[in-house]
Amino acid sequence: MSPDEPLVLSIDAMGGDHAPDSVLGGLALIAKDGFNLRFLIHGDEAKIQPWLDQHPDVKAITELRHTDKAIAMDAKPSQAVRSGKSSSMWNTLAAVKSGEAAVAVSAGNTGALMAMSKLVLRTVEGVHRPAIAASWPTPQGHCVVLDVGANVEADAEQLVEFAIMGEAYSRAIHDKAAPSVGLLNIGSEELKGVEYVRQAADLLKKDELGLNYIGFVEGNDISMGTSDVVVTDGYTGNIALKTAEGTARLVSGFVKDALTSSLLAKLGALLAMNGLKSLKTRMDPRTVNGGVFLGLNGIVLKSHGGTDATGFASTLRLARQVGRSHFGEDVTKNLKRLRALQEKSEGIPAQ
Amino acid sequence: MSPDEPLVLSIDAMGGDHAPDSVLGGLALIAKDGFNLRFLIHGDEAKIQPWLDQHPDVKAITELRHTDKAIAMDAKPSQAVRSGKSSSMWNTLAAVKSGEAAVAVSAGNTGALMAMSKLVLRTVEGVHRPAIAASWPTPQGHCVVLDVGANVEADAEQLVEFAIMGEAYSRAIHDKAAPSVGLLNIGSEELKGVEYVRQAADLLKKDELGLNYIGFVEGNDISMGTSDVVVTDGYTGNIALKTAEGTARLVSGFVKDALTSSLLAKLGALLAMNGLKSLKTRMDPRTVNGGVFLGLNGIVLKSHGGTDATGFASTLRLARQVGRSHFGEDVTKNLKRLRALQEKSEGIPAQ
Repeated sequence: MSPDEPLVLSIDAMGGDHAPDSVLGGLALIAKDGFNLRFLIHGDEAKIQPWLDQHPDVKAITELRHTDKAIAMDAKPSQAVRSGKSSSMWNTLAAVKSGEAAVAVSAGNTGALMAMSKLVLRTVEGVHRPAIAASWPTPQGHCVVLDVGANVEADAEQLVEFAIMGEAYSRAIHDKAAPSVGLLNIGSEELKGVEYVRQAADLLKKDELGLNYIGFVEGNDISMGTSDVVVTDGYTGNIALKTAEGTARLVSGFVKDALTSSLLAKLGALLAMNGLKSLKTRMDPRTVNGGVFLGLNGIVLKSHGGTDATGFASTLRLARQVGRSHFGEDVTKNLKRLRALQEKSEGIPAQ
Repeated sequence: MSPDEPLVLSIDAMGGDHAPDSVLGGLALIAKDGFNLRFLIHGDEAKIQPWLDQHPDVKAITELRHTDKAIAMDAKPSQAVRSGKSSSMWNTLAAVKSGEAAVAVSAGNTGALMAMSKLVLRTVEGVHRPAIAASWPTPQGHCVVLDVGANVEADAEQLVEFAIMGEAYSRAIHDKAAPSVGLLNIGSEELKGVEYVRQAADLLKKDELGLNYIGFVEGNDISMGTSDVVVTDGYTGNIALKTAEGTARLVSGFVKDALTSSLLAKLGALLAMNGLKSLKTRMDPRTVNGGVFLGLNGIVLKSHGGTDATGFASTLRLARQVGRSHFGEDVTKNLKRLRALQEKSEGIPAQ
């Protein structure tokens, strides 16, 4: 797509605990960035139109498509899929399927969004299952971790597919020529990890794949930024990510305790306020808000269910980056290399 | 054991990157605590005796047993086991086996120590495999996480055994009547986690087991202290623990950046110094130093390989707590309940 053409984002206005306010607030924020964007908004006209009328800058680049059906935040994925047709979430995805929009964005129920994405967009040819990728802060920037919960298990071949998609995604949003890829494992000499992880490592090492594979990484490497991409199964990835979030919150709580423990400490914190503010921004989960569904015929971004306008705007910025990138073509190219490798080798049968 | 009798700790003086200095320094620190302890030290007399002569308070409660054989920090476990007989590590474990000492403590190579522990002490009857438990700080105190790396995989029955051992350990060191037990899983509605985790949950729910089981917990619950014990397989547990360590280091680094970002921030940090010192103590990995090997006929504590005297003293304090507790009997009682349950049920066959 030429950068002169506006990038169209398809947006589920009714997804998220604070929808549609959080969604609309996010649109207002990103509209100020001055990117060449257009919004295709799906949701309840009665709630959205009055807001648009009050925000002419957003209204000017928006097309609102009414539906009074919305997927509940606690809906079961299977139920959402069965009865979700023509809901705001469904229509958001359908606009990407039809080619009207480049990226779909929703802060709705993760399970429902993934199930519906698979049904509406279908999995990319050559990928067994989509994955969810998350970005985690490091001293150098961010590390892309996947899968963080789309699948419970993964075999060696799926881990390689995750590596391919994660690498292309890292390139798309972090602007690196050859992002490094690490495979999550445990480090003890005797325990080299589970069988399928070792098989995946053997595949990832092959030069023909064209990946900048750096080998096994351990849990602490995620936060250290040892590699740009960390690949693991959805069970381990989800637990690692949530453990990291919990720990960040714990330490932040300890810091707060320390800086309010005495009058002197409070005075010190006041003097250090500017530095502490930048810390807060760095650790603000809203600035890294957005899991990305990779491996579908179209890009789907999931904003946090509890997000506010600031968080939703972060996801929209991410959507813009991915939408403007060559992500899809990169994945296709790398997948072709994987299949060629499999046809050549006897190790793992081609699909 | 009557509290009037001294508790005997068997100590590998040659294990750890900074041995024997770190080990001896740790002994000097804990000797000052005034507990009713005796030390059985295994290692190189030429290096240890001169130090003991200079520390009469430690010397008075110590028996030194010479060996010039030590297990290298990078030795392969299989090799360590084959050729490790009469090494300081081996003799440390043998003294527990013979009943001369209550607890074995080493900062040596984890894989070698586990392999040798299994050979010398043997696995407790009724337990399939030993596990390594670690303590992680929470706002309320500490959470015991196991397995953090003794095994790569675990089935449902093994997870229940881990729960039994972890609960007894938590009771032993944290002085709780009925520590709560959570099973690590992922939370999405559709993806209730892997099969063996769900099977373990079904077992843990049974009242006859006598555990205070609170259900599934997620990664963030570890740092929140949602349960006193978190049970998982060694692969996931190792990755969660290392991810948590890495994140704690990352956030601490960000805090340091924030508090040195300007002259004013530095001045503020100076004023807040007392509060920040207590923060440092709270996050100091040395104060929670010590993985515990559970499920062996005898208690083995592993201090961090890179530990200094302060860290080794923490492990010795932990050794004292476990050694003075009813840990072993509690495990035996709970295991009996598990076996009774299995004999009754058709679900999982008795061992």
